[in-house]
Parts: sequence; C-alpha cells; structure tokens
Amino acid sequence: MKKIPVGILGATGAVGQRFIQLLDNHPWFEITHLYASERSAGQLYRDATTWRMDTTLPETTAKLRVEICEVDEMTPKLVFSALDSSVATEVEASFAKNGAAVVSNSKNYRMDPLVPLVVSEINPEQLELITTQKKQNDSSGFIVTNPNCTTIGLSMVLAPLYEKYGLEKVSVVSLQASSGAGYPGVPSLDLIDNVVPYISDEEDKIITEPCKILGETTNGSVTPADIAIDATSTRVGLRDGHIEVVSLSFANAKPSHKEIRETLERFSGLPQQLNLPSAPKNPIEYCIDPARPQPALDRMRGGGMTVTVGRLRESKLFDVTLTLLVHNTIRGAAGAAILNAELLHQQGYVD
Amino acid sequence: MKKIPVGILGATGAVGQRFIQLLDNHPWFEITHLYASERSAGQLYRDATTWRMDTTLPETTAKLRVEICEVDEMTPKLVFSALDSSVATEVEASFAKNGAAVVSNSKNYRMDPLVPLVVSEINPEQLELITTQKKQNDSSGFIVTNPNCTTIGLSMVLAPLYEKYGLEKVSVVSLQASSGAGYPGVPSLDLIDNVVPYISDEEDKIITEPCKILGETTNGSVTPADIAIDATSTRVGLRDGHIEVVSLSFANAKPSHKEIRETLERFSGLPQQLNLPSAPKNPIEYCIDPARPQPALDRMRGGGMTVTVGRLRESKLFDVTLTLLVHNTIRGAAGAAILNAELLHQQGYVD
Amino acid sequence: MKKIPVGILGATGAVGQRFIQLLDNHPWFEITHLYASERSAGQLYRDATTWRMDTTLPETTAKLRVEICEVDEMTPKLVFSALDSSVATEVEASFAKNGAAVVSNSKNYRMDPLVPLVVSEINPEQLELITTQKKQNDSSGFIVTNPNCTTIGLSMVLAPLYEKYGLEKVSVVSLQASSGAGYPGVPSLDLIDNVVPYISDEEDKIITEPCKILGETTNGSVTPADIAIDATSTRVGLRDGHIEVVSLSFANAKPSHKEIRETLERFSGLPQQLNLPSAPKNPIEYCIDPARPQPALDRMRGGGMTVTVGRLRESKLFDVTLTLLVHNTIRGAAGAAILNAELLHQQGYVD
Amino acid sequence: MKKIPVGILGATGAVGQRFIQLLDNHPWFEITHLYASERSAGQLYRDATTWRMDTTLPETTAKLRVEICEVDEMTPKLVFSALDSSVATEVEASFAKNGAAVVSNSKNYRMDPLVPLVVSEINPEQLELITTQKKQNDSSGFIVTNPNCTTIGLSMVLAPLYEKYGLEKVSVVSLQASSGAGYPGVPSLDLIDNVVPYISDEEDKIITEPCKILGETTNGSVTPADIAIDATSTRVGLRDGHIEVVSLSFANAKPSHKEIRETLERFSGLPQQLNLPSAPKNPIEYCIDPARPQPALDRMRGGGMTVTVGRLRESKLFDVTLTLLVHNTIRGAAGAAILNAELLHQQGYVD
Repeated sequence: MKKIPVGILGATGAVGQRFIQLLDNHPWFEITHLYASERSAGQLYRDATTWRMDTTLPETTAKLRVEICEVDEMTPKLVFSALDSSVATEVEASFAKNGAAVVSNSKNYRMDPLVPLVVSEINPEQLELITTQKKQNDSSGFIVTNPNCTTIGLSMVLAPLYEKYGLEKVSVVSLQASSGAGYPGVPSLDLIDNVVPYISDEEDKIITEPCKILGETTNGSVTPADIAIDATSTRVGLRDGHIEVVSLSFANAKPSHKEIRETLERFSGLPQQLNLPSAPKNPIEYCIDPARPQPALDRMRGGGMTVTVGRLRESKLFDVTLTLLVHNTIRGAAGAAILNAELLHQQGYVD
Repeated sequence: MKKIPVGILGATGAVGQRFIQLLDNHPWFEITHLYASERSAGQLYRDATTWRMDTTLPETTAKLRVEICEVDEMTPKLVFSALDSSVATEVEASFAKNGAAVVSNSKNYRMDPLVPLVVSEINPEQLELITTQKKQNDSSGFIVTNPNCTTIGLSMVLAPLYEKYGLEKVSVVSLQASSGAGYPGVPSLDLIDNVVPYISDEEDKIITEPCKILGETTNGSVTPADIAIDATSTRVGLRDGHIEVVSLSFANAKPSHKEIRETLERFSGLPQQLNLPSAPKNPIEYCIDPARPQPALDRMRGGGMTVTVGRLRESKLFDVTLTLLVHNTIRGAAGAAILNAELLHQQGYVD
Repeated sequence: MKKIPVGILGATGAVGQRFIQLLDNHPWFEITHLYASERSAGQLYRDATTWRMDTTLPETTAKLRVEICEVDEMTPKLVFSALDSSVATEVEASFAKNGAAVVSNSKNYRMDPLVPLVVSEINPEQLELITTQKKQNDSSGFIVTNPNCTTIGLSMVLAPLYEKYGLEKVSVVSLQASSGAGYPGVPSLDLIDNVVPYISDEEDKIITEPCKILGETTNGSVTPADIAIDATSTRVGLRDGHIEVVSLSFANAKPSHKEIRETLERFSGLPQQLNLPSAPKNPIEYCIDPARPQPALDRMRGGGMTVTVGRLRESKLFDVTLTLLVHNTIRGAAGAAILNAELLHQQGYVD
Repeated sequence: MKKIPVGILGATGAVGQRFIQLLDNHPWFEITHLYASERSAGQLYRDATTWRMDTTLPETTAKLRVEICEVDEMTPKLVFSALDSSVATEVEASFAKNGAAVVSNSKNYRMDPLVPLVVSEINPEQLELITTQKKQNDSSGFIVTNPNCTTIGLSMVLAPLYEKYGLEKVSVVSLQASSGAGYPGVPSLDLIDNVVPYISDEEDKIITEPCKILGETTNGSVTPADIAIDATSTRVGLRDGHIEVVSLSFANAKPSHKEIRETLERFSGLPQQLNLPSAPKNPIEYCIDPARPQPALDRMRGGGMTVTVGRLRESKLFDVTLTLLVHNTIRGAAGAAILNAELLHQQGYVD
C-alpha cells in the first residue's frame, strides 16, 4: 500500500519536530514536504534546524528541503500545522483554500464556528462541520483543530463524566512543563529553584475550549456545553507533562468514587474501536498510589497518548477532586493532531 | 542588657539549623542550650551536624555541646522546639511541666484545646490560653505553637479578609518546596524533571489549622472559625518557598479587587506595633506583575517574613482567586516561632 | 524455542527494576525468579516495591513472588545481580558455588583476579578467566562482572584508541546523574540549584577498573594496562546520563582529530558481529555540534547502549580533549550486564 | 561626607541589576545615572526593566530616568560598565575619552595592552597602566577591567600559589551557572534534566586572562605569566555559582597539601589591608568536608566575594587537584568591578 504524502507547516519548531518524530515509520502517512519561514527555506531540514528530540532525526526527513509556506501543485493533500499563531491564520487558510486538509495544532481557528475542535476519542461527530466549512469556502480543503495541551488532558477526563453525570462546575490549577512554551521558550533562570505562577494567554483556552469540545453538534453548528470552568496555570521545572489538579461538581448525579473511577477507566472511543495506529489502548489510566501520576514516570504511558488520573477523593467545596497528567507535546499537541488525521482518513475525509 | 538564654530542641535538623541561623545576633535571645537525640548528644554542635544553611555557622553555637532532650536545673526558661513529631509530644510536655516556655514548630499540640496556635500578627489574643494551660498543668511552663508552613501563608492572607468581609469557602492548591520535608527529605529523583502530586499528612493541616487561628478566644477556649477549606498539596523542585493558588468566597461582603488589595497591603498587627525584632515592616506585599510572586525572587522579602500576593482576579466559581508565596522555613517555621517568642516576651509571658 | 529462565538478585532496587524493564520481551531470557531482602520476601513483586521505571511493570513479573537470596534446587542457572555491595560478596559467591552463572553489576568482585571484568565490545577474551574460576571453586557456577557506570563510558572510548595508538595518561572529570546513587539516593536539596563536587567511593573505580578492562589476558590471568588515570566525580541535577570530560595523551602515535574520530565511529565488537539482542548498531556515535552530547537528548541513542562523543579538540596539556555521555543505568549497569549474559550464552558459557 | 556620583552603563541587564543591588547603601558611591539602549531611554528605571534581583529595587534608583549611552556635561566621573560586548567597545571608549573612569565588566578591553585587567587582591599594580593609557588617549578618563567570572575564581586561587611556588600547568573543567549567560540567557529545556557541555566564547578567556592577571607590570606594560592553561566549560542547572575542578603542577616547589592550604587561607591583599567596603575578610576559605564547596550553601560567603576551595588532594597527572567555587555575578562580575572602583578611589585614581 502506498503511503499518503503529508506536509508539515512550521516544521523547524518544537512541535514541528515532535510531528516528525511521531510520524517516523507511520503506517499510513509519509512526510514529503516540510514548510517553515523564509529564513529556513531552501536548506536541507537537518541544516535548517537543531534537532532536539530524544530520538534520532529520521534520515529521509533530514534530507528533505525546507520550503516556504506557500501552496503549489505539489502541495500534499494532507498537512499538519505546527505554525506559530502569528502566521497560522493566513497560511492555514491559504492551504485549505487550495484543497489541503489542514490538521492544525495552532490556536487560531479553534473557536471558529465552522472549524471542528476535535479530540478523537471525545467528539468525532464534530467533524461534520467540515461539510459546511467546505461549502462555505467553496473548496475541497478544510481545517480541523485539536485543543490546547492543558485542555486536552482536562477534556479527556471530563468527557466520560459529562456524558454520564453531567457537569456543573470545574476548577483547574495546572503545573505545566517548559516544553509547552517551545524552544527557546522559558528562560532557565525562571525555572531553576523557581515557579512562574502565570502563563500568558493560557487560562482562557482552558476555560472556553472544553465547552466547545463537549458541546452538541447539530445541523453543522456546535452548541457549547454549559459548564463553568475556572483555571489557573503555573509553569514549573519540567521538560514534558502537565499536571492538573481538578475539582468538579456534577449536574445530574452523585456517582461514588468507585463509579467515577470505572467510568474513567472504561472510557474508550472511535480511535480504539477503529484501532487507529496512534490510539492508545487505554485513553485513561488510573493510579492507586496517591503519589501518582508523576510526569517523569507516567507521561509516556500509551506512547504519550494515555492521560493518567490519580488522587480521586472527597472535596468540601465540589463533589470530587482528582489529579491528572497529560503529555503536553504528544497527547497534548502533535499526537492529538496525528490521531485526528488518522480518524479523518478512516472516515473518508482524507484519502 | 543581658540576653535571655534559650534552648533549641531538635537542634541538628533542618528547622533546628534555621532557628540557629535566625537567632544569630538576636537582640534579646542568646542560644545557650542545644538538644538533640542520643546519637548527637555529647558532641560539639559543629561535629554533631552538617551545617547546611547558606550563612556560616555562628562560632559560639558551633562550640556548644549537644545535650539529650532532658530537663535539669540548667534548662533555660525559653526553648524553641523543632522536634520531629515522633518525639515532640513527650519531650515538649516534660519541658513545659518543668517550667519552660516551649515555643514549638511541631504539629503535635497545635490542635490541643489548651495550646495557643498563634501567628503573631493575626491572633495574639489566643495567648490567653496559656493561663488556663498553666493552671491545668500546675506548672509555670507552657507550650505555644505556630501553624504548618502552608497554613501560615494562607492564614496571613485570609486573616484581614476574614475580619473585614467574612469568609465562606476557600480552595487552595499548593506548590511546595523541598525544604518543607527537611533533610534528607525528598529524593532528588522525585523532583528532577518531575512533580509529586501528594504530600502525606499535609492537606489536613491546611484545612483545620486556619479555622483555629481565625477562631474566637473566649474564657480560655477557642471557637474555630466556620470556613470550608479544601486543599491539595504538591511538591515541586524548589529549595524554599511555597506557592499557593487560593480561590475564596466572602461571607458578608463583596469587596472590589481594589478594596481587597488595600486590605491586604494595610494588614499589620501587634508585632509591627511593638516593633518586634523579627517583625517585617509589611506582613503582606502585593505584586502587580502577573508573573509574580516567584519563589526565587520574592521569598526573602522582609527577611523571609513577608508573605507576597499577586494575580488577584475574577473567578467564575468563587469571588476571587489569588496567588501567594510564603518562605516555608522562615515565616512558615523558625521565623514564626521566634516572632511568637518575641511577642511572649513583650507581653510578659517570658522574662 | 524455550527461553532461558533467569533470576534477579536485588530485584526491588533501582538497578533491579532496570533489569526487569530491559528484560521485558527479551528474545532469549525470561525472568522466573526475583530475589530481595527478607523485608520483601514472600510478597508479590508489585507489592514489594514501588515501580519507578518510565514504562509499565510487565504483568508476568508483577505477579512473581519475591524470594530471599538463597539457593535451592529451583534456582535458575543464570542470575543477574543488582545487589548492594554490603551483601553481594556472600550472596553472589553462594549462588556461583551452587552452579549459577552470576552476571553481576555489583562492585565486589570486579577487581578479583579470577573474575572477568567485561565490557562485551572491548574484552570478551577476559571470559577465559571463567575456566580457572570454576576450577578453583570446584563449581559449574561462576561470577562475571561489568564495570562501574562511569568506567564503562570511559572504557568504551579508550578501548579503540588504546588498541590503535596506545594511551599514556587520561584525566576525567565527570558530571554524574542522580540515578547512579539509586533510590532514594541523593536528597533533592543537594541537587536543586546545586552541585555536589564529590561522590564517595567513585573516583577509585574510574582509576583502576579501565586498566583491568584494557589489560591483557594470558594463561587465566589479567595483566592490567599501564595507563595513568586521574578522576574527579561530581553530582549534578540529572535523572540519567553521565557526562565525562576526558583529556588524554597517546603512548605510541599522534593521530589527527580525523583519525581519532574515525577510530571511534568504527569501533565495533563481538556483540555487533554476533548481532546480540542488546548490542547497539553503533557502540560509539560522534556529534559534530559542539553543544552535544546532551543527556536529555542523546542518552537514549542505541536504546541507551550507545556512548556519544563530542567536542574532540586540541589540548595544551594532553594530546586531545573530548566529552562523552553514557546512560549510566542502561549501558552503565543493567544493559551492560544483559549484553554480557547474551555473549556468555552465545559463547557457550550459559545454556 | 558627600558620596561620589556614579553611572551604570547597561543598567537594565542582569549584571546591571546586580550593580544596582550591590551599590545600594554603598558608603562611598551613589548611583545618579543609568544608561541603557534607546529602547529603554527616557523611561523611569522601574518601568524600563523587570527587576529580577532577590532583594527589592531601591526606591531612589527606581525613580531615575534611563538615558542613552552618550556623554554630556552631567556624566559622572565614575561609571560602571555592564555593557554587552556588541556595543561596549565604542561606548566605553567614548566615556573614557570624555573624562570618565570606566570600570568595566565587559570583555572588550580586557586584553588591550593599555588597559589594566585587575582583581583587586591580586594585581593592583596593574593600575599603573592607567597613566600610560591616559597619556596615549590624551584624556583624564580611562578604562579598567575585571576578568571573566570563571577566570576570577581561578585566578584568586592561582595567585598565591603562583607567587610562592610558581605554576607550570593548569587544567580546569568548570560547571557554570545559568546566570553567567544573563537573562533570558539559557533556555530552560537546556538545563532541566540536562547539561550543556559547551559555552561559546568562554574557554578562551579562561586560558588567556589569568596569564595577564598574573603577569609582571613594568614600565607601563604587562608581560604575561607563562602558564599553560587548559579549560573546558559546561553549563549546569544552577542559578548562581561556578564550580571549577582544577588540577595544577607547580614550577618551582612541591609544597605539601598543608602548605598549599595555608597559603590559600592566608591569601589577602590590598583590599583587606585598606579595609575596602566590598572586601571580604577572607578572600579564600577552605572546606574540610569533601562534599563542599556547594553553590547553594557556599556561594554567598563573604557576601559573595569569598572564593571557596575544597577537595585538595593528590593527582596522578598533576601535582594536586582541587575544587573551587566562585559566585559568578558577585565576585565574578559586579562585585569585582565595585571592589576595583573602591581601590581606584583609595589609590587616588578616582575622586
């Protein structure tokens, strides 16, 4: 079987590198085009960037020549976007307009009413928006987005609970890894023997994106879920893996801790049903040890695609409190987008 | 003026060392006795412990001979306790019974109805309990405690708000420093590129102690304040300084952010009035920069005795959210106890 | 093909866990016995230890019952030892005496004249000592050791240079990872915003072991290589991966940097020839970027079995200086032992 | 007594902030002028920079208005330079030409034959060059420099040994703190669970600067000391404090370890004799504990101006090996410059 050629927009950045790492030896997709800024264009990929993943740069990708982010007749029909938000709006639109399926990790179109904001296990039905989007833009191309890294971990845990018990309110405090800010990103003096209690432009995404993800899709539009979410984001000295302390109150039921845990552990979606290549066997795993999940020990479960939960317990102010861990650059970024693309392919949106 | 001789129980541990550091050149107190376990007893202090403070071990203390934790006719009338909770119950009681004022950082007697749990700026009136305690124990000695490190930071911020606006509910998520667990304490493999989402035996203290501190003292007993507190504690790769993300709802009023900030910044107590040696000029300072307070940059304000607050803002689920920072081994431990002792001296409980 | 049953001595410690992780799905070996101290004996492995590897504890191993370190008729013929040096002398001897091939990572027998100290790529001929050892001990069992973690990285680089150009003197300064001290190991307060400039009992091994490894084996005894080695070990805030800054002077030739680099990159041994399961394709890889090798990015090359070298350059006081990186708990411990066992099996010492 | 007005060139950067911190309440000097790039000029200092020292920004400095780096009739006669090397050449020359004493931490003029490269305790006689420099430039102003941060720590230790025993060769491997690269400086992903084995443009300074410092000044020119120095610099996850592992061989004598230690501990210079405000009582202190010096515990000795030495011991390849620690932004930068200025004032070069 011939593999589907794919391109990567923003290939030289941290998320771009993660895309390349995760797509190495992918059974369906094959990287044929790498796009970056003018500064890098024209160079071999291995010369255009300092490879900083913890596996070797795949030889075939190393030798690809980087191109500027412009469409031509050679542009693959599927491109992943790891573009900086300062340029994503225009570039992604132009690729979509010219017939490409743009599977984007950028924030720019996430809240656009025509653009699906999808976590493959949770809301594949939101891909319906693609039909309207194509029609509206009169193009065979389209944009599909995945949420912010912290939002993904949170939504994975909220989704099965919301479906079964309803959710009224959710409070999140996150301890986020340095890689979330890319490279060079956060200065080392900010994180050696230190914590930065603020991440610019982060909390808003955590408050709004889950409501779209958990919303109802009818007639080509999404009615957001009505959940009151509060979020505080902090940055700590971690390479990868966001920890989130989550307190929540249910809307329709008061499940026991045992029921909640079972609901989480049984959570499974279309990716698992379809046995998609990047789908983890268990989207959520629960840790009994109260000192877990820990980023260094648990972030790579399910190849970085499993969200780990622990410390489910009583709360005086909410129904329950729990702690979750999500690998922010795999499940929270490149891995989520690749899983979305796999789903798009299986569902016939990309061939 | 002759200085008051003081002893330190548990002098070789991390908090014991901090006591010694902070009492160096103290205008009123002079360390004359150091107490530790049998293993250390009989040795010169400098041989009995590896000094791990970031200032030099004072020469006079270095040469003191460590004694076992037993009372005799030479025992000073004022002792600070940095004892491990496994031995504090018995030792502190025996020192108090034999006429010593025991100013303790240990948790053992904090919730005892006869023992004051005092933060000098907040509830000096709880020292009244001493009278009942002495009578009950038929002794001129007594025990006074200061709260847990995380509790102190929290209580400092809650106190002026509680007094002025009432408090209904408080939610805290803490990012705590390694030094809180003493030395050797937390293994480095737990905190390099990692977070531990749990601290054994910590959250309970944060939930209960503030209610006693903010309670009302009448007729020799404390009626705890009725505030619903929720707490989650995590351990991060920091040397010193606990960060707390606090959300709260008021009981009696809905002050504006401006009013809240003014209330916090104007907070001041008896230590400031009496100009006690260890009293910071500002018990609370507010940071306008949303990326502050940061442990590495702000924990030493007011010599480590000032609590720093930032990020006061709207919350969807509470009235407001804010972030605070407290130096856990100065304001949160040894410094708090020394300030309590200074207050005891000024108030005539110790002479 | 039926797999060879193997036991692990010291299975609950950090190196023991690494053995279990690396032996999961091993094509030749299958863990059937786990040995630890009396405290753990009798429990299921999953209850006897807190699993701290970054992959999941294999189900079959999790359910094995831990035994005390004693030999009986069920003892497998091949055991790996991750024993603490305080008990290794006696336990390893008793297992060897009772017919087991003990492949040990412990230091106790490394310098014993009858015991091979082997890095599979470098000195497989030292396995000859086994014959004498068996005879001497009148047993079919025997002990084979691999060197200290820092020594292995160093020896891998010295070996091809020594063979080709001779070595007169070698100076090493190492920046070592926390995992080298096991768990709990180094306190976090020692490594947050800190360096410990000393590792007890380490430098001596780096000075003596390479000379035995590079020595000549004739008639059942090893004549150590005559190389003057100086070593300073420091501990830094790393999880895994020792960095070594190495300066050296050759004895017989003055190769160019190009020749040296080629000699290193071409280095290959019996494990590569025999295509042993744990043998990395490239025992040594060279980095052109002067800012490499970096532990976080390069330690997992070759599955953690490849030693990475960089910064080969002029020295004013030696012939050349270079920097190397070795994964201390894979190539530097459990992985090295497993590779030795694979070689023993292939060479007919274990079946 | 009226204080001497001083200016700071490059006041908004990390070293500039350190100058301001250390000059707060200085008995002789008073900051009256702050210079920075055009971007900051015109703003109040507190608005022009994010203050990142661990003490509060002094009120009077906070309110100073930042100026561009140009000379006018108000320019103070003494300016400290913390300028980036990209602009220091021109700016420092223009200030000197216009009559200012420029006490610079920048590297640009360090190796200039007319410019003193001075560590106040070691080579105050090199200030003689000022006379020639002034004549040559026909100006009452001049430039005086202090060495690179790593060089200073090294030179402090070499100086008394060189004077007494001569030095033939010196090998240095440094573990350097993040602050050496300023702010934002080193990305956090480079130092979390990582080491960078290379610091661009650093090793050369360590090799050449000590020879000028220890050189002989005669007739207005310096003959560098003839010592063969080798250096390897690495960057580790530290806020402040460079560790240096130093091996050395003497030229004229073979002192015992006891003699060496005494020579180091007795080292004292003009700053101690003159009791200069920033002079530490002990320029060098020796630690008996082999696990010291440690940056977190020892870097602030002598207010950050004392160099700490430990682990003096045998070497197989040199005469001895030792480990030293220097606070890189105090003794290694701003503090060194201020001490130089104090010496200049005492010696009549600045009034």
